Amino acid sequence: MAASSACWFEMAQSSCDLCVRDGGEPIVRKDKLRIVRVDDAAFPAFYRVIWNTHVCELSDLATSDRQACIEAVVTVERVLRAQLRPTKINLASLGNMVPHLHWHVIARFEWDSHFPHPVWGVAQRAVDPSPRSRLPVTLDGLDLAIRSAFD
Amino acid sequence: MAASSACWFEMAQSSCDLCVRDGGEPIVRKDKLRIVRVDDAAFPAFYRVIWNTHVCELSDLATSDRQACIEAVVTVERVLRAQLRPTKINLASLGNMVPHLHWHVIARFEWDSHFPHPVWGVAQRAVDPSPRSRLPVTLDGLDLAIRSAFD
Repeated sequence: MAASSACWFEMAQSSCDLCVRDGGEPIVRKDKLRIVRVDDAAFPAFYRVIWNTHVCELSDLATSDRQACIEAVVTVERVLRAQLRPTKINLASLGNMVPHLHWHVIARFEWDSHFPHPVWGVAQRAVDPSPRSRLPVTLDGLDLAIRSAFD
Repeated sequence: MAASSACWFEMAQSSCDLCVRDGGEPIVRKDKLRIVRVDDAAFPAFYRVIWNTHVCELSDLATSDRQACIEAVVTVERVLRAQLRPTKINLASLGNMVPHLHWHVIARFEWDSHFPHPVWGVAQRAVDPSPRSRLPVTLDGLDLAIRSAFD
């Protein structure tokens, strides 16, 4: 394998968490990718776009697959914006712990526990009432809107 | 402006830091986007792809512009992989503090101060000798490789 396309982890596909588990609550299943919702009380509108086959980095995908992956991310982003009017959308492909291509798509609000810092930083405030109760739609409604966007 | 495309910040373009400043050491300037290197001692191989015009979210771009933006991110990613053989590439579009579309492209290493956590989290270890001295190429060499990839 060429140096630039190698995955610098000694992680066999068989031991990759995203090869053997959904990685969250399944919302949409497509041939090449899936959308799951992450169960995070602090950030209830938190979805992942997960590429089904095991690749480590975005640049490992062929151009057409990369476009399909990003358009799926953007479709989730559009639904979150339309349904929630968040302060900001956060997108990230990190994979330091699970080097299997997946995108975090997170609706952020000025009132959330970490804003304006990334969700991976230090909490800035306690949030009460709960983040989930502050959303203008239910998570079931949000999931449904995402499913509809992929129909 | 339609609800789904509005920017939920009361930030006039004239007060946007990325509308008035480069946002880092300029490496590549193109009509629609620029590449800058971030001066971060802990993460020396840290670049940003910044869309030149003021848009808040990836979904605000037309499809062809979005593809151009992502292909620029991927081009930087490819150079970092080829030149540095990092443990992982981290990509993120956050913009909570500066809601002007920009992508962080960061080469991560198992030895870096925060690995396997995101760079925005809590440091896991002290790093000595310096991160910059551990890279297999100089930053000038890395900048040059990125410039060449955009020629």
